[in-house]
Amino acid sequence: MTTIQTVQAAKNAARSCALLSENTRRGILLAMADALLENTENILSANALDMARAKEAGRNSQFLDRLMLSEDRIRSMAQGVRDVANLPDPLCGMRDVVTRPNGLTIAKKPVPLGVVAIIYEARPNVTADSIALCVMSANAVVLRGGSEAIDSNRAIAGVMIEAANASDMPEGAIALIEDTSRESAQQLMHMNGLVDVLIPRGGKGLIDSVVREATVPVIQTGAGVCHVYVDATADVQMATNIIVNAKCSRPSVCNAAETLLVHRAIARFFLPDCLMRLAEAGVELRGCEKTRMIIPELAQATDEDWETEYGQLILSVKIVDSLQEAVEHITRYGTGHSETIVTQDIAKAQEFTNMVDAAAVYVNASTRFTDGFEFGFGAEIGISTQKLHARGPMGLSALTSYKYIVLGSGQVR
Amino acid sequence: MTTIQTVQAAKNAARSCALLSENTRRGILLAMADALLENTENILSANALDMARAKEAGRNSQFLDRLMLSEDRIRSMAQGVRDVANLPDPLCGMRDVVTRPNGLTIAKKPVPLGVVAIIYEARPNVTADSIALCVMSANAVVLRGGSEAIDSNRAIAGVMIEAANASDMPEGAIALIEDTSRESAQQLMHMNGLVDVLIPRGGKGLIDSVVREATVPVIQTGAGVCHVYVDATADVQMATNIIVNAKCSRPSVCNAAETLLVHRAIARFFLPDCLMRLAEAGVELRGCEKTRMIIPELAQATDEDWETEYGQLILSVKIVDSLQEAVEHITRYGTGHSETIVTQDIAKAQEFTNMVDAAAVYVNASTRFTDGFEFGFGAEIGISTQKLHARGPMGLSALTSYKYIVLGSGQVR
Repeated sequence: MTTIQTVQAAKNAARSCALLSENTRRGILLAMADALLENTENILSANALDMARAKEAGRNSQFLDRLMLSEDRIRSMAQGVRDVANLPDPLCGMRDVVTRPNGLTIAKKPVPLGVVAIIYEARPNVTADSIALCVMSANAVVLRGGSEAIDSNRAIAGVMIEAANASDMPEGAIALIEDTSRESAQQLMHMNGLVDVLIPRGGKGLIDSVVREATVPVIQTGAGVCHVYVDATADVQMATNIIVNAKCSRPSVCNAAETLLVHRAIARFFLPDCLMRLAEAGVELRGCEKTRMIIPELAQATDEDWETEYGQLILSVKIVDSLQEAVEHITRYGTGHSETIVTQDIAKAQEFTNMVDAAAVYVNASTRFTDGFEFGFGAEIGISTQKLHARGPMGLSALTSYKYIVLGSGQVR
Repeated sequence: MTTIQTVQAAKNAARSCALLSENTRRGILLAMADALLENTENILSANALDMARAKEAGRNSQFLDRLMLSEDRIRSMAQGVRDVANLPDPLCGMRDVVTRPNGLTIAKKPVPLGVVAIIYEARPNVTADSIALCVMSANAVVLRGGSEAIDSNRAIAGVMIEAANASDMPEGAIALIEDTSRESAQQLMHMNGLVDVLIPRGGKGLIDSVVREATVPVIQTGAGVCHVYVDATADVQMATNIIVNAKCSRPSVCNAAETLLVHRAIARFFLPDCLMRLAEAGVELRGCEKTRMIIPELAQATDEDWETEYGQLILSVKIVDSLQEAVEHITRYGTGHSETIVTQDIAKAQEFTNMVDAAAVYVNASTRFTDGFEFGFGAEIGISTQKLHARGPMGLSALTSYKYIVLGSGQVR
């Protein structure tokens, strides 16, 4: 099938998907989880083909690690699918029920979005994950993964589709686009009327190109240049713990911190010990002029540093004259993801949470908590950095819309 | 200023807008309403220039009626602004407050979207309306109206901006783009990172071109090919009232009905009287083959009829064999706006509301109720026919997003 035929088939199937009962959807998920486990050998053989090609192409160890599957990883993939089957049904119930003076009863009923398309890179786990979330939210899903993982994706999607179709999932409602050319991605970005939402999952380059080019509705995810601002009144021990955690606990993810901002009134007292702890944890530090006046051996941070999502153990450090200057720096260089203030002054905390425009604004906690699981949603389809539809960690409900049901007894206007 | 400078200035002003207190915003609205009344003469003179040009260009009476202002219309424009000032603050309060097991308290705080851009046609009332809704929701707003109304728009926006700036509205937060060329609209559609949402308001041509071309987030509004389906068990008196109301009460608007679907079991009993009442009301009728077997003098409806939003007193009529066939017709030709079933059978009502995918699905009521005021929102920025962000009538809250505020006491992950 061509890409357009695949998406057209998904669109047709989406209508039947929307009518699947909660129990049917849960049953499909459990069948898919079982099928993943039963087909571990096949999936691993397919993955071995991808791994061999990636090694031959000289991919780095980070890339290989994301691509590689193992028995353990397939087991946790299956468990992830099972976990989604146990989440509350996002389509359950009615909201905002009102009866109007004319007797009309109006209610919002949650409904699936329709066709969810996902463009992603060489992470086979996104395949299982996205299928599970879309099935639970009764959406049709069209996956367009990277060429580097095509054998793994084909195996995983194949197993899940077979199990789903055997359990009443409408034919065509789950589809993997096997054409991994740039053209197939371009086509998806312009299928207005067929694709109800397109979610890019991957690096900045992928996301930027989708946001810049797509004419279908997009949810922008990911890019995180996150800041920790240590205010004049911060508890220095707490501040040190928070920045060490925000930078070091998992530097490759989008909610890791990239820049430490420090109020000048506390800088001399706070920075030497804090930066030593960061250096001991293996962090490469780059400081502004004022920071280098306190710790001269630091490398100089440039404008490029302020706007870079390092994704590794590098941290830029800047001393600011005021909370206002910290907010201005964040406004200029932040990506609207996660920002935190460490302070003991409640007025400053309030000023910071009011002024900073980001998906998640923290007081006295690590930026690393911006995550669907940590927020208690039980699953995550991504972290939105846009303001339309969904912002911040997106759980199952971000994959739903609603329709108004209006019950009358002959009312006319 | 160039278009890009105007939007850049609005983006900068949006930060300060977001911090305006509820009282300040209400004060700005009341000042703007007063200013509209005080400047009635100026606005009418400006409108006279637009009207003269439109007459010279040979515009039809519908066009002239939409363009024309009068003392009465300016008074009701000012009252509309005043009404928005009296709505509940959409930025008030926190939602979904939870405390997680680790002690983090997480809440969603409503925030404005940022920069709302509106592209519209020759309706000067959209200018006042959009400014009022954006001010109340603390957004910056960039208006790009049609060339035919430029003098009226310049006068209305000028008066409102002057009054707003005198009442603490940040400079540049309300802007009218005076360049009404195709290029200025095109630029707006591609200002990713500056325009947070673009809402086209106007005819199908305008909306389609924005949806097809824009890469900034768009909310699709408007187009309505709405159906009334009369089921086998309908109360024929109620059904007649509903279709007459849905077609005739205001045929030019998007929630008016365009097609009547009738179950064959009731057709012979229902159609003759119903169609006579419609004909008496001045409706031109076009029927399918089966309808013409009952009433041979009807004109033949073509495929084009089923997909046309007439916007005038024309109605197409089709006899269907089943509810299923009615739903299929609606799925194929409907625009996802408003659909109604007339029935006394609760199971059929439920089947219809489950199967039909539209912003508003009615049982035993006219489609004409799909409207922000009728739904009790007190205002309306448009009727969304997409599923992302907002669906159906959009009140003030559709112009908001949220941010997560996370309060901790030193939590790390």
